[in-house]
Amino acid sequence: MSETTRDQANQDLSNETIRTLIAHRSIRRYKPDPVEPAKRDAILYAAQMASTSSNMQAYSVIGVTEPALKRELAVLTGNQAYVEQCPLFLVWCADLYRLKEAGAKHGTAIAEDTTENFIIATVDAALAAQNAASAAESLGLGIVYIGGIRNRIAEVTGLLKLPKLVYPVFGMCLGYPDQDPGLRPRLPVSGIYHENAYRPEQIRPAIDEYDRIVSDYMRVRTGGQSDRDWSSQMAERLSVPQRAHMRAYLEEQGFKLT
Amino acid sequence: MSETTRDQANQDLSNETIRTLIAHRSIRRYKPDPVEPAKRDAILYAAQMASTSSNMQAYSVIGVTEPALKRELAVLTGNQAYVEQCPLFLVWCADLYRLKEAGAKHGTAIAEDTTENFIIATVDAALAAQNAASAAESLGLGIVYIGGIRNRIAEVTGLLKLPKLVYPVFGMCLGYPDQDPGLRPRLPVSGIYHENAYRPEQIRPAIDEYDRIVSDYMRVRTGGQSDRDWSSQMAERLSVPQRAHMRAYLEEQGFKLT
Repeated sequence: MSETTRDQANQDLSNETIRTLIAHRSIRRYKPDPVEPAKRDAILYAAQMASTSSNMQAYSVIGVTEPALKRELAVLTGNQAYVEQCPLFLVWCADLYRLKEAGAKHGTAIAEDTTENFIIATVDAALAAQNAASAAESLGLGIVYIGGIRNRIAEVTGLLKLPKLVYPVFGMCLGYPDQDPGLRPRLPVSGIYHENAYRPEQIRPAIDEYDRIVSDYMRVRTGGQSDRDWSSQMAERLSVPQRAHMRAYLEEQGFKLT
Repeated sequence: MSETTRDQANQDLSNETIRTLIAHRSIRRYKPDPVEPAKRDAILYAAQMASTSSNMQAYSVIGVTEPALKRELAVLTGNQAYVEQCPLFLVWCADLYRLKEAGAKHGTAIAEDTTENFIIATVDAALAAQNAASAAESLGLGIVYIGGIRNRIAEVTGLLKLPKLVYPVFGMCLGYPDQDPGLRPRLPVSGIYHENAYRPEQIRPAIDEYDRIVSDYMRVRTGGQSDRDWSSQMAERLSVPQRAHMRAYLEEQGFKLT
């Protein structure tokens, strides 16, 4: 989809929801104002109404407001100051513990330890979280996802007292934005969308086009200091295994991935 | 959060986005009208603007419109007629193949085979998909997620010609609703939300309360034929391992989960 097509889609099909969704950018500086309880409740309710696999609702959210706890989490997530600074830090967890309890109510042991159930719980957490993000942004709040919650995940698990069969998939800062960053360009749609079958031949041209876009974007954003393109950023980042502890952690936490 | 609180949050904080999010219900019968290309483009653009881990955008979408292909997918997903009937069937895939290509552009082999990267790609697919769902619903379309895409996942992978390092996380039917189902009640918020630490003691009372709610809901929905509660549905469903082939399939597809 060309930029022109996007602008047009944007004009013709503009509604508040789509305007909210396409205006997303991550916020990394927040005003001290708290998230009002009524807004938090509306956000959680929107999260709950997201689709969930067979109504399993295999996720939980820990809302962190205690300053000392946010400070510790800021350190554990890689010294990300905004984790401490944001008034509300949500930790989105995949949760099979509740389902195990549901089984226990009927004296039934559930077969919780499969890769399939791990996927279900991880996806359920993500769908709910993305609804929360959209709801929050529609209410004037800003958010940023914190994958760094998996950096020192065992310590986070202890700190938040997560039982077995619960793991933190990501964190999310919420609060009123104290910055106004621009939108970050995404891959050309030809790089992510295929009709009726995957077309590998679309990929390299899409990467090349995106590299030019990102290079220009970086040049502007850094005032000419960098014109680093996307593929070189990815190549560097992914040449070293990230968070290689995840598998062992998940096994320990009861997700057997068999 | 009580129903009263929900109603109030709903009234006080109502905006189009939140109204769209909380009005979600899965649609399983569609009118024959196609999804207009401009709407499809707006939906994809909204999907692309979702958060993505370190801008990796580790997902792809296959848009299926060919009738014969939809028919085959309807069978492979467990004879779900709406997969064939819906005018546009989206298959949301976790995709590390594109990142591998990005690395290859610089002669760099990426360390793609970790559980961490599997989680990143799965979550990226889910966040984008949920934005697509919200955008679609805001445009008057209905959707339903199809986890059944994982029933016979190797066959789906062959049918859609997915390369290694790409796997279908779920499908999604899109189209104009030809039914008007009610909202499905969710767990009490005390069952999914915890403040500052996980509180296992909240879980059983929340399950008990939800069981009563679901039991009443089922009684109404089935005209008195069933009052099956949530925990007994879950106990039955989860007592047998689901899709036990997933781990072996993922290994074969290049996701090593080490």
